[in-house]
Amino acid sequence: MNDQRSNKSFDYMDENGRIILRPIGVVHSPLQGKSNDAPFQSFVSDIKGTIEVFEEFEPGLDGIEKFSHIFVIYYMHEAEKIKLRTVPLMEEEEQGIFATRSPSRPNHLGASTMRLLAHKSRFLDVEGLDIFDGTPVIDIKPYVAKVDIVKGVDSEWLTRKLEKIKSRKLE
Amino acid sequence: MNDQRSNKSFDYMDENGRIILRPIGVVHSPLQGKSNDAPFQSFVSDIKGTIEVFEEFEPGLDGIEKFSHIFVIYYMHEAEKIKLRTVPLMEEEEQGIFATRSPSRPNHLGASTMRLLAHKSRFLDVEGLDIFDGTPVIDIKPYVAKVDIVKGVDSEWLTRKLEKIKSRKLE
Repeated sequence: MNDQRSNKSFDYMDENGRIILRPIGVVHSPLQGKSNDAPFQSFVSDIKGTIEVFEEFEPGLDGIEKFSHIFVIYYMHEAEKIKLRTVPLMEEEEQGIFATRSPSRPNHLGASTMRLLAHKSRFLDVEGLDIFDGTPVIDIKPYVAKVDIVKGVDSEWLTRKLEKIKSRKLE
Repeated sequence: MNDQRSNKSFDYMDENGRIILRPIGVVHSPLQGKSNDAPFQSFVSDIKGTIEVFEEFEPGLDGIEKFSHIFVIYYMHEAEKIKLRTVPLMEEEEQGIFATRSPSRPNHLGASTMRLLAHKSRFLDVEGLDIFDGTPVIDIKPYVAKVDIVKGVDSEWLTRKLEKIKSRKLE
């Protein structure tokens, strides 16, 4: 069995067993503010913005315009705390952090799918943003129906619960 | 506009503007080998394995068993190169790296959805693995139908293309 210590010798890690990533771009979004103001995931967002990819990575975008949607991994830089248990946004009971999308996770990575409206040189115009302005982008992948739309998912209990809480809060 | 330089003052980055992450666990998988042997995404995989979360993060898993599927972000530690353009696995034409799922991306992050079979203390038994044994796990999130199953995705052209190439290669 591998453990954290055995990983320390890998060269992609630093001397403390940590992994080093470089931002490949930045999000330009009308959303400003701290983590708790984020819209509840992009399924309720029709917010438009732009993903700027830094110049050195521009060739990496070739062909991305063939996809209707992209999947973006980013660093939630506004997140200040790490919590292992939290009360998720719009919910009422504490959960383990990995059972939530809260930014307060051990590694502040976010992952969102958005519609790709246009690819212009090193800029991607997108719709369905739930990311703050200035957020560092770590990776962009095509969203592929065959891979990313999973069959047999049972999370309707959560959808119902959230809609119930939401309508109560809006009253 | 933000740029790479302006990010350097953020405290989650090191002095070179890089982001530091800590593995939260490790994948135990029957898949051994180098990046190019990976099965083509989990939609063709019924491979079972276990995600081990390191002891300190165990409380973060509370409640995850309520989800049928989880979404795992991991570091593709077998990836050796960074390429900005590549010929994707099972395809024939070169693409920008961000228009592919190739491990040779600037940050070697992978993202896969898998079925959660069981949650036993700090171990998650999963099905649908496309990840090598020993891969460091960076984050685990619940896969939520309402958020992650995107409507109106047009990537059927790719599915058709891949199935065509695959059947040709299997002949």
